[in-house]
Amino acid sequence: MNGPIPHGGDLTAARARFPGRSDWLDLSTGINPWPYPLPRLDAAAWTRLPDAGRTADTEQAADAFYGAPPGSALAVPGTQAALQLLPALRPPSRMAVVGFTYQEHARCWRRAGHAVTETPSLAEAVAAADVVVAVNPNNPDGTGLDPSDLLRARAALAARGGWLVVDEAFGETRPELGVAGACGAPGLIVLRSFGKFFGHAGIRLGFVLADADTQAGLRDALGPWAVSGPALELGRIALADRPWATGTRLRLRAAADRLAGLLSATGLRVVGGTPLFVLAATEDAAGLHERLMQHGIMVRRFDERPHWLRFGLPPDADAEQRLRACLAAYA
Amino acid sequence: MNGPIPHGGDLTAARARFPGRSDWLDLSTGINPWPYPLPRLDAAAWTRLPDAGRTADTEQAADAFYGAPPGSALAVPGTQAALQLLPALRPPSRMAVVGFTYQEHARCWRRAGHAVTETPSLAEAVAAADVVVAVNPNNPDGTGLDPSDLLRARAALAARGGWLVVDEAFGETRPELGVAGACGAPGLIVLRSFGKFFGHAGIRLGFVLADADTQAGLRDALGPWAVSGPALELGRIALADRPWATGTRLRLRAAADRLAGLLSATGLRVVGGTPLFVLAATEDAAGLHERLMQHGIMVRRFDERPHWLRFGLPPDADAEQRLRACLAAYA
Repeated sequence: MNGPIPHGGDLTAARARFPGRSDWLDLSTGINPWPYPLPRLDAAAWTRLPDAGRTADTEQAADAFYGAPPGSALAVPGTQAALQLLPALRPPSRMAVVGFTYQEHARCWRRAGHAVTETPSLAEAVAAADVVVAVNPNNPDGTGLDPSDLLRARAALAARGGWLVVDEAFGETRPELGVAGACGAPGLIVLRSFGKFFGHAGIRLGFVLADADTQAGLRDALGPWAVSGPALELGRIALADRPWATGTRLRLRAAADRLAGLLSATGLRVVGGTPLFVLAATEDAAGLHERLMQHGIMVRRFDERPHWLRFGLPPDADAEQRLRACLAAYA
Repeated sequence: MNGPIPHGGDLTAARARFPGRSDWLDLSTGINPWPYPLPRLDAAAWTRLPDAGRTADTEQAADAFYGAPPGSALAVPGTQAALQLLPALRPPSRMAVVGFTYQEHARCWRRAGHAVTETPSLAEAVAAADVVVAVNPNNPDGTGLDPSDLLRARAALAARGGWLVVDEAFGETRPELGVAGACGAPGLIVLRSFGKFFGHAGIRLGFVLADADTQAGLRDALGPWAVSGPALELGRIALADRPWATGTRLRLRAAADRLAGLLSATGLRVVGGTPLFVLAATEDAAGLHERLMQHGIMVRRFDERPHWLRFGLPPDADAEQRLRACLAAYA
């Protein structure tokens, strides 16, 4: 077993390092800071076991929202749960992850006994492995892979019994990249996160869009009642609210553009991102990270990419001003 | 992979069989019908990833409530999640389950490749296996195993690297049977369900009370953010509310006594139970089950025990009267 990977959003660790501070501004995640307004949830969502009907209703809403064929979506308690379980559905294989990306994929495949490599390109990954994992758009650099390249990769892998796993955790902000419409094809497994775009990361809801065999394997590994009633209920309602999603896409894009401008203006080099976060580079990223922490601002750094910092969206004008002031003083 | 096991609470299946009915009375589970009053939950429980601090606060509340040494409790998204994952933490072993009980244990150990037997007594189970699973008090018959016998079994199993798994899903109603106080001892794994006693089965919260090695293995298998923020928050608050728990124990006991009286008065033979359900026997249990279903009353039957029916607590006087009328007409 390998150790836990550091992630954004760890307020507990921040508080432990700076016990005097109470005004933390958390920009260390890629979660929408303007969450879907919490509706009044059916009391039975809390009290009753989430039965097959409740689960199916939410999965149907997910198929429709993600543009996948009916019957594609399996609800899971956060996509992390799928990352943990998918590797156990295959005998030891060669797995290649495309580019520097979300590290839990490699960790989970390794802990299940697979041989894991990181390759710079999709084509090299397909040539090298039975299972290819691509995050699209990529976290943290925002690189987008062409859906037609992905679908060709899927076909090549499936022809030899392989899988293409596409993690579309930030897919709502770049709908043109999505491959959910092809789900059902053998070997294609698409992961969608509910919490990031809808701003409710705490409820633990995600979807695996895949063929029936993969779904059956995951269902068996998860067992009954894997996803909570409140998560299913909130998901069902929010996924059906297209006007909210449309407005939110515009709002996030504008906010990310504004954040990129702020970062550039204070001397950082914007090197990537999605509408849910901006990736910036600077010579002394470690020093800037530390200074931001000292001012109560959490951002994400990466041990393996020492010049990078990832910034989530400031939730309001005060937060933006705090960030600007701290960066300007350091520039 | 073996097929899903039928469970109580499947309103979807009931509705599919009787599409005309809308007034279902669900007595097919052992969930407290008077749930802990839902407090106003911190918005961050929904929006933020449930970080280590939030999880630790709830786990500490669980240690205190269950009377386990500090550091014993690991929060899981329902005890079913622990059932699914525990068997993967051991090489293929001989597992024995004590008596006729909750069937998910056997299913989960079998699917992970262990050799599973059902034995009538704890002593025979310890003699026959490396891993012994006992549900205490037992579901559905309510049989209680003596805690000192369980702790002796734990020692015997641990001496040869074995485990004693005690599923105390209905433990709140029989606190004198609990062995959580001994947690930390090698090989002792106690499972506690939050949803049944607190009446919130939908939120998916349970605890594994165990030594550090078992906890580490489960943490690694679950990955980060396994339990939702709303579940952790509700759990933390409810587990600390001792007056509510004390009052609820009394209320459930009185309600179960009353239900047992009702069942006896209408000609059924009460053969077991806990304060959360009553087990009754009758010659034509299948016929009675069907008649109750036709009247919109769901109870639990058991393919392997054709004379048994398990009744959950009627939530109010109307429900009780509906049940009484239906049983009286059939007697």
